[in-house]
Amino acid sequence: MNPVRFIQAKRDGLAHAKEEMAAFLLGYLRDEVPDYQVSAWLMAVFFRGLSQEETLWLTEIMAHSGKVLDLSHLPHPVDKHSSGGVGDKTTLVVAPILAASGCTVAKMSGRGLAHTGGTIDKLESIPGWRGEMTEAEFLERARKVGLVIAAQSQELAPLDGKLYALRDVTATVESLPLIASSIMSKKLAAGARSIVLDVKVGKGAFMKTLEAARALAEAMVAIGKGASRRVRAVLTSMEAPLGQAVGNALEVREAILALKGEGPEDLLQVALTLAEEALKLEGLDPGLARRALEEGRALEKFRAFLEAQGGDPRVVEDLSLLPLGEELPLLSQEEGVVQEVDALKVGLAVLALGGGRRKKGEAIDHGVGVHLLKKPGDRVERGEALALVYHRNRGLEEALGLLGEAFRLGESASPSPLVLGMV
Amino acid sequence: MNPVRFIQAKRDGLAHAKEEMAAFLLGYLRDEVPDYQVSAWLMAVFFRGLSQEETLWLTEIMAHSGKVLDLSHLPHPVDKHSSGGVGDKTTLVVAPILAASGCTVAKMSGRGLAHTGGTIDKLESIPGWRGEMTEAEFLERARKVGLVIAAQSQELAPLDGKLYALRDVTATVESLPLIASSIMSKKLAAGARSIVLDVKVGKGAFMKTLEAARALAEAMVAIGKGASRRVRAVLTSMEAPLGQAVGNALEVREAILALKGEGPEDLLQVALTLAEEALKLEGLDPGLARRALEEGRALEKFRAFLEAQGGDPRVVEDLSLLPLGEELPLLSQEEGVVQEVDALKVGLAVLALGGGRRKKGEAIDHGVGVHLLKKPGDRVERGEALALVYHRNRGLEEALGLLGEAFRLGESASPSPLVLGMV
Repeated sequence: MNPVRFIQAKRDGLAHAKEEMAAFLLGYLRDEVPDYQVSAWLMAVFFRGLSQEETLWLTEIMAHSGKVLDLSHLPHPVDKHSSGGVGDKTTLVVAPILAASGCTVAKMSGRGLAHTGGTIDKLESIPGWRGEMTEAEFLERARKVGLVIAAQSQELAPLDGKLYALRDVTATVESLPLIASSIMSKKLAAGARSIVLDVKVGKGAFMKTLEAARALAEAMVAIGKGASRRVRAVLTSMEAPLGQAVGNALEVREAILALKGEGPEDLLQVALTLAEEALKLEGLDPGLARRALEEGRALEKFRAFLEAQGGDPRVVEDLSLLPLGEELPLLSQEEGVVQEVDALKVGLAVLALGGGRRKKGEAIDHGVGVHLLKKPGDRVERGEALALVYHRNRGLEEALGLLGEAFRLGESASPSPLVLGMV
Repeated sequence: MNPVRFIQAKRDGLAHAKEEMAAFLLGYLRDEVPDYQVSAWLMAVFFRGLSQEETLWLTEIMAHSGKVLDLSHLPHPVDKHSSGGVGDKTTLVVAPILAASGCTVAKMSGRGLAHTGGTIDKLESIPGWRGEMTEAEFLERARKVGLVIAAQSQELAPLDGKLYALRDVTATVESLPLIASSIMSKKLAAGARSIVLDVKVGKGAFMKTLEAARALAEAMVAIGKGASRRVRAVLTSMEAPLGQAVGNALEVREAILALKGEGPEDLLQVALTLAEEALKLEGLDPGLARRALEEGRALEKFRAFLEAQGGDPRVVEDLSLLPLGEELPLLSQEEGVVQEVDALKVGLAVLALGGGRRKKGEAIDHGVGVHLLKKPGDRVERGEALALVYHRNRGLEEALGLLGEAFRLGESASPSPLVLGMV
């Protein structure tokens, strides 16, 4: 493999062979191929794309660049991934439902960046809960509880981590095959047989249009099938935040309420849709999902999961154990019907309050956030509260400004559907 | 200047500001911007191109990244550049003609790479001749002799050297604005007021089609005008080698014969055309060129030039002072009219004999090469010699194979014109 010829082939729109790709990329992982050649190749990929075959190969090369977990001895191993949104606490609801329905949910999750949150950050707002563990602990908890969520390990798909870091500083993030293969490489390495993907569409999502989201979903499903996994992608709206809560502890609170059947309708709808699709992939009755929820078994599973990972299980009954900032209502300056709640602006408001991180590694405040009292379609009077802001006297002015812009009122509203399609 | 946003702007087809380009590229020269960001930008430039304005800025930033020579106190400072070909010893003829016509030719030249030769390599086949010198010596020789040729200095346009080395290993060489700016940055830094460009077109040239060559010529002329230089580009054919000699000492011998009026017609035509254009740029009578040649003054200038740079001036009278390998005739297997002598294959044959270098820094043998006895349009009998091969028992088989393929015979030939256009 001659690196210059390899780059040139992609530059000129020619096809790669799998062996060449592996030699170039694993050479990079071993520091034998220099980063300046890899970044030139990544930019050529940005312009030329990757064929479906090349995308699958890239994913497999990344997935096998480190440890690959084997969950095949566990009952119905399923995984779930979200492309990222605002107020997206779906994993906290879907995972216990699936575990209570006879599946094994042994998954890796990430931390939040910019306006989007991360499951690990959310769970860390529960006193004592820890996402770090050994592989033995991970597999033991998967076996015993049927549900374990670990912080993304550097040992899984290390090539993906190294490539992503390079893409981040060379303006080569926004490439569909690179995004799809990055997500799927971690899913393949994590070892589940069935994978449900929640691809978010809209203002608060990475994919702004349905077309872009569908293309990403199709690319990921194709990779999954190519790698002999069962994959289903659900396209869901991220114009407005999901549910009412945005901010780590607030979202955990909302997820617990949802597991009690008291959560917001939109969150329950997305969670149940994803759970039902996962059950179908595993050949199980999709009706199991709703029953696990209604019979309280999903909530019980969540409690057992918290306990197994060091979290205080009493939080399920006593939500006041969760951290919470000072409350300030955001009052409406006008009357009308809420037409839009801009998810991106709400996400940026929580970021301003200290509930997210602008750069990797930054500390976050789990107790700040926004609880939306009005959502699209709701009528509001002048002086009525649109939302409750939870803060620590930091970034408040910026957050209130963003929230003021996030709400758009009018005479009437035609709320858009939540589930936009399936792939 | 944020490097990621700078790369992204080019990636997305947006315009750069000159200050941003300077900050990014001079940051790279100072090792403050890492090479992996620069190579991603170069690949984005490969796909998106550079506007005429951006190309000029890039050239100026590179030209001013190091020392810039000032030749304005010398009479009629002119420079000449060839885009590179096979058997292209034109500089050795043009430069003495111009110096004998009242111009100052103080130029930097390069070494050969792959199938194309370099002026410095050719001159180094003359016993004692040296292209290395101090700036003071360079200027002193320019003033005294009117003709000096130095090996490309690392002090001129160092950013170009650094960028070129990176392009070479990242498959980003073949970009018109990058090629044009690279050539012109060195010409601007070298300080001549008028510049004639010999843009080669055809099998043995970098530019394979007239369209591509014209585009390069136009880009270079636009840069020169933007930088207030007088520039003229001549498009000349490089389907067959120029002249009969290919190989360092053989080409010097042919150049000396041309300066004596005994050289091949095609070489003299290209050399006189370029010299006449340079004289016109300087507002001088183009007829001076032919007179300098016919009156022997160009040859005298060449002799003085050799002497000033340590070369043995007796070589002008005694061509046997030049190194020469063992002679082997290449005999024709058939009879007919020569339709084509593939310049690229002849160049590669000389490379195989050891007369060129595959990688920078390799030593070369000045005495090997090919002397073409037949050129397109010539009639040849079976068993008649097509060429004389000068070798040192190295790479002979490969060279003979390539030469056998280089000659194409037929019933008749319609030789193509030598000068294909002007910009």
